[in-house]
Amino acid sequence: MKRFDKKDILKDIVKHIDIKAIDSTKIIDAMRDMSFTSRDTAIATDILQNMIKDKDCTIILTIAGSTSAAGCMQVYVDMVKSNMVDVIVATGATIVDMDFFEALGFKHYKGSSNVDDTMLRDNYIDRIYDTYIDEEELQICDKLIKLIADSLEPRPYSSREFIMEMGKWLVKNSKKNDSLIQTAYECDVPIFCPAFSDSSAGFGLVLHQVEHPDKHVSIDSVKDFYELTQIKMKSKNTGLFMIGGGVPKNFAQDTVICAEVLGKNVPMHKYAVQITVADVRDGACSSSTLKEATSWGKVDTIFQQMVFAEATSVLPLMISYIYHKEDWKNRQKFEWAKIFK
Amino acid sequence: MKRFDKKDILKDIVKHIDIKAIDSTKIIDAMRDMSFTSRDTAIATDILQNMIKDKDCTIILTIAGSTSAAGCMQVYVDMVKSNMVDVIVATGATIVDMDFFEALGFKHYKGSSNVDDTMLRDNYIDRIYDTYIDEEELQICDKLIKLIADSLEPRPYSSREFIMEMGKWLVKNSKKNDSLIQTAYECDVPIFCPAFSDSSAGFGLVLHQVEHPDKHVSIDSVKDFYELTQIKMKSKNTGLFMIGGGVPKNFAQDTVICAEVLGKNVPMHKYAVQITVADVRDGACSSSTLKEATSWGKVDTIFQQMVFAEATSVLPLMISYIYHKEDWKNRQKFEWAKIFK
Amino acid sequence: MKRFDKKDILKDIVKHIDIKAIDSTKIIDAMRDMSFTSRDTAIATDILQNMIKDKDCTIILTIAGSTSAAGCMQVYVDMVKSNMVDVIVATGATIVDMDFFEALGFKHYKGSSNVDDTMLRDNYIDRIYDTYIDEEELQICDKLIKLIADSLEPRPYSSREFIMEMGKWLVKNSKKNDSLIQTAYECDVPIFCPAFSDSSAGFGLVLHQVEHPDKHVSIDSVKDFYELTQIKMKSKNTGLFMIGGGVPKNFAQDTVICAEVLGKNVPMHKYAVQITVADVRDGACSSSTLKEATSWGKVDTIFQQMVFAEATSVLPLMISYIYHKEDWKNRQKFEWAKIFK
Amino acid sequence: MKRFDKKDILKDIVKHIDIKAIDSTKIIDAMRDMSFTSRDTAIATDILQNMIKDKDCTIILTIAGSTSAAGCMQVYVDMVKSNMVDVIVATGATIVDMDFFEALGFKHYKGSSNVDDTMLRDNYIDRIYDTYIDEEELQICDKLIKLIADSLEPRPYSSREFIMEMGKWLVKNSKKNDSLIQTAYECDVPIFCPAFSDSSAGFGLVLHQVEHPDKHVSIDSVKDFYELTQIKMKSKNTGLFMIGGGVPKNFAQDTVICAEVLGKNVPMHKYAVQITVADVRDGACSSSTLKEATSWGKVDTIFQQMVFAEATSVLPLMISYIYHKEDWKNRQKFEWAKIFK
Repeated sequence: MKRFDKKDILKDIVKHIDIKAIDSTKIIDAMRDMSFTSRDTAIATDILQNMIKDKDCTIILTIAGSTSAAGCMQVYVDMVKSNMVDVIVATGATIVDMDFFEALGFKHYKGSSNVDDTMLRDNYIDRIYDTYIDEEELQICDKLIKLIADSLEPRPYSSREFIMEMGKWLVKNSKKNDSLIQTAYECDVPIFCPAFSDSSAGFGLVLHQVEHPDKHVSIDSVKDFYELTQIKMKSKNTGLFMIGGGVPKNFAQDTVICAEVLGKNVPMHKYAVQITVADVRDGACSSSTLKEATSWGKVDTIFQQMVFAEATSVLPLMISYIYHKEDWKNRQKFEWAKIFK
Repeated sequence: MKRFDKKDILKDIVKHIDIKAIDSTKIIDAMRDMSFTSRDTAIATDILQNMIKDKDCTIILTIAGSTSAAGCMQVYVDMVKSNMVDVIVATGATIVDMDFFEALGFKHYKGSSNVDDTMLRDNYIDRIYDTYIDEEELQICDKLIKLIADSLEPRPYSSREFIMEMGKWLVKNSKKNDSLIQTAYECDVPIFCPAFSDSSAGFGLVLHQVEHPDKHVSIDSVKDFYELTQIKMKSKNTGLFMIGGGVPKNFAQDTVICAEVLGKNVPMHKYAVQITVADVRDGACSSSTLKEATSWGKVDTIFQQMVFAEATSVLPLMISYIYHKEDWKNRQKFEWAKIFK
Repeated sequence: MKRFDKKDILKDIVKHIDIKAIDSTKIIDAMRDMSFTSRDTAIATDILQNMIKDKDCTIILTIAGSTSAAGCMQVYVDMVKSNMVDVIVATGATIVDMDFFEALGFKHYKGSSNVDDTMLRDNYIDRIYDTYIDEEELQICDKLIKLIADSLEPRPYSSREFIMEMGKWLVKNSKKNDSLIQTAYECDVPIFCPAFSDSSAGFGLVLHQVEHPDKHVSIDSVKDFYELTQIKMKSKNTGLFMIGGGVPKNFAQDTVICAEVLGKNVPMHKYAVQITVADVRDGACSSSTLKEATSWGKVDTIFQQMVFAEATSVLPLMISYIYHKEDWKNRQKFEWAKIFK
Repeated sequence: MKRFDKKDILKDIVKHIDIKAIDSTKIIDAMRDMSFTSRDTAIATDILQNMIKDKDCTIILTIAGSTSAAGCMQVYVDMVKSNMVDVIVATGATIVDMDFFEALGFKHYKGSSNVDDTMLRDNYIDRIYDTYIDEEELQICDKLIKLIADSLEPRPYSSREFIMEMGKWLVKNSKKNDSLIQTAYECDVPIFCPAFSDSSAGFGLVLHQVEHPDKHVSIDSVKDFYELTQIKMKSKNTGLFMIGGGVPKNFAQDTVICAEVLGKNVPMHKYAVQITVADVRDGACSSSTLKEATSWGKVDTIFQQMVFAEATSVLPLMISYIYHKEDWKNRQKFEWAKIFK
């Protein structure tokens, strides 16, 4: 049996697509007059464009799944830099295992989905479908989270607060300057991870708490929920741009209800777009249609579009279109992170 | 336009299937010699049966999605009562919006997936695919969570601790005696919700914190992660029985790595079964195969089976088979909740 | 590298489930009060039961996909024997590669979907997902089709006519007595394969035509369409029970339009059930909803149900229920094959 | 209730994307270094490019599903015009209901998937997911097929022969000059529809046969299979470019086996690409992986790629890339239609 060497396996780097360097304007324009997923993609793009043009609209980007490891990280960074996004709600994996990880200079690698996983395990290589990660590098990531936690005042933090501290740390220590965490920190775009410990961050934080059993940093997702709801309450309109479903989707949608519970009547999310491959028929939130969210009073019916596609194939087209239309240039900055300072 | 009355819409109650009253033994036995999903269902059942017979195996049930609202709640309760499950990791919605909700005497209703959601909204009816919920009843649920939080000592809690308090409360106040929370509480089966505030509980807890800005209950999911990892470290073998994916799946799998980070080498999860409709090709954790988890060192390769099906259609057959085989009768009780007392 | 021997690989036989020996009555009764796929399964079963009880209803079973190789062949045979089905429209593979093949005494084998296909190829083993076939046996199947064609008067045949001749041949030569072809032949239930040559039959018939270039058997699917439409025109009501989609689904639905084209106004199919895993969003017929078929004037809106499931997991439950309810015992026989004699 | 007028509903025309006018070169180049569906799309494009550059390779395009109604018809026409395709195998609907239909000057219309289908039925509007068709125009299509059949010598035809006659007819009578049928006819690219009568053609041909009961045109799909196999036998290498699955996919793959049955050993298809949303797990041919086809000896393992996407979203990017690379300019013309003259 042929033996594999780790260096042979981890050799082709995943490169993040640059939506500024491609121009999809004509493609999206053509898709608008087609059918099925192509037209859905164009309609969803138009709705995002509407959010950009609506001067009262806070745009919330939610990210679940592994698109950041799969070549779309720079898309999200460019969205923040181009003022297309005011708030991010993401999975811990997106923010810690993928973005913080690459900020440290580490890379994702092109691999194969049809591989002997035991061989990968023997080489300490982790696999996400057709993408590989060096687990030893990931463990460095865990340890730095612990160090950051060790350096903070022991008390409950929202994930937003903790990620802001990661941003501060990266300003001084990052190898790759335009990570999503650092960019968002510098642009005062708050990032929330409602299930923060379900990621590489969890390992580092457990280690921190075990070493500091009495006084330590804890992550209070209730605080996250209240903070995000405050942004909802201070926004005249809101729009959701959702990559995948999961906790981020539900969490962002639920702020409408949470505001109500706090005695403040806020409008439903006025705009909503979701890109997903999830199957609508299993009753899970990831796959529930936006129409269904309307029954819950979360999402308005007029500007909503599901795009049933794997996001890496359509997201770059959508954002490249928005970028080259340049309406984001006239958009005011909300800088919601400032309200918590 | 015909007007609908709430009472006309919320009229047919979802009834939970009783796996003791049906007997699927012959069906699973036949499926073992068929192909495609039927054979996968039989193999997965056999793997669960192996977990039951392995006297050293802690069985972790993870639940994402809405099967509890869809007629499978009693399946989970019977699994706990019949000592088939030692730990539960679930979404907040499963535990609070569905189980705690029904413990208060409220019901889920049979509806339609092809309906005017604006009409439902006007009637304060929430929809999960083809299932309806009275939102006014759900708001009572939120408020009781707040009352429970108000009654507790202000400090960070793991979700397990808080859910245990809900169990205590239900012993005195429940309308339906065998809720999952109460049954698990009485059987010392710990329940973890790693994204607890992403549910009806979130609303109640935000309200609690807003009313008690200085000293309040917070939910620390790092603590959850540490507690679950302690169970993993104390167990000789572990098996995962996963309904859907989401945070519960990832959280339970990650305990292997967390133990390593804490300096204790534990074996991978020896057994793993997942029932899901998720699409493997989007690189999200919900849909990642168990084979993929092997590369991460989380799940062993020998006893693992994915069942690509909507869980309500196969889960009752699987558990009825296990129930009627009666091997659970000879199984020791781990009562892991006791280690945190 | 370990060498495999064909006998080691083809060793575990796929056994067809016997819906008479299992009793799913209580399960379907419970599923009726659940949600998602379980309730859809119960509703679809009830619609089939309605077809059975409607004394004016011709029931058309359409079969695409490989359920016959996967352990459901006997389900279809028992449906014919129990007078639950009046017409069959199927893929060539179902009728020739799977049913005629097993009638000759050959078997399908339990295999794995995660296998080295080049190794299988080296052993002349064909794979359908997790099921294996001995290709040398399949070639015998091809040759017998040629022999049957050689023995017939050279002229265009509908597939129904040719399959009837296969039935006649099997009465004398079959190794397994209750094949679907032979059973249907003996019960005067016509079988149509609108894309007949897209199967093992195609190989045999090409060989037949090459050897008899001037005068030979040809397969005229226009004739099939006219014959099936005649049955539609002679039936007061019709119901479709569809396993998968493909050409059989479309062909059976289209008879409504064909009758119109022939100047006879016939009602839409009154009942329609489809079991499929196909994705509704690609605009292909296999996956198009029954609601969509309503726009084409093919299927009525009242008694229609899609069941999104892999058929081997739900079909046996559905038919076992119908079998044990025994309403088929009072049903008249249409024996539509007789109108072509 | 608001009444709808047919003219109001059929108003926005589906326009076919022009892959010459967009330039996706940079996008595909970027996707090659990403992951998931984007990388699969780039790899599949590279394989098609390999087919183009392989001077011995006959390229077979198979089309199932409704992409032709959904804005991709011109993509296929441009592929033929740019000598990227040597043979087409398609569903009857693609060739007759969509292409012949538009050749007559009729259009497809942008609609909604969330609509009252009974209302559409009342207006004689047919729906394909989110696309509408005027059924009265479709009936004109049926009748012209009958007229063409009436004008031909009564005997069995392969679908290829009949479609060639449609091409001839269109040269004189078409309203839209570059239909796929006419373009292919003029470029000597044969088109096969193995299930020809499962389409609007079926209606016209049934009417033709009913009016000419003794002597009439029949469609012999065995002849199709033999003709396509002859092309396979005369080609040194072959490549499959498959949109969707269905009968066209299986039929084209099976020519390898058919050649064997005829005593000629031909190589497997050297290249194979399939774009599909089908679910691999149901054992149907539409969704079977190319890896699985290897076990059948149909498709070689080296140059094969599945792209799990709805084709309208990725196909234009792929073909635009190939077009702008211009390697097709140096490709010889096979003009396979000439061998049957």
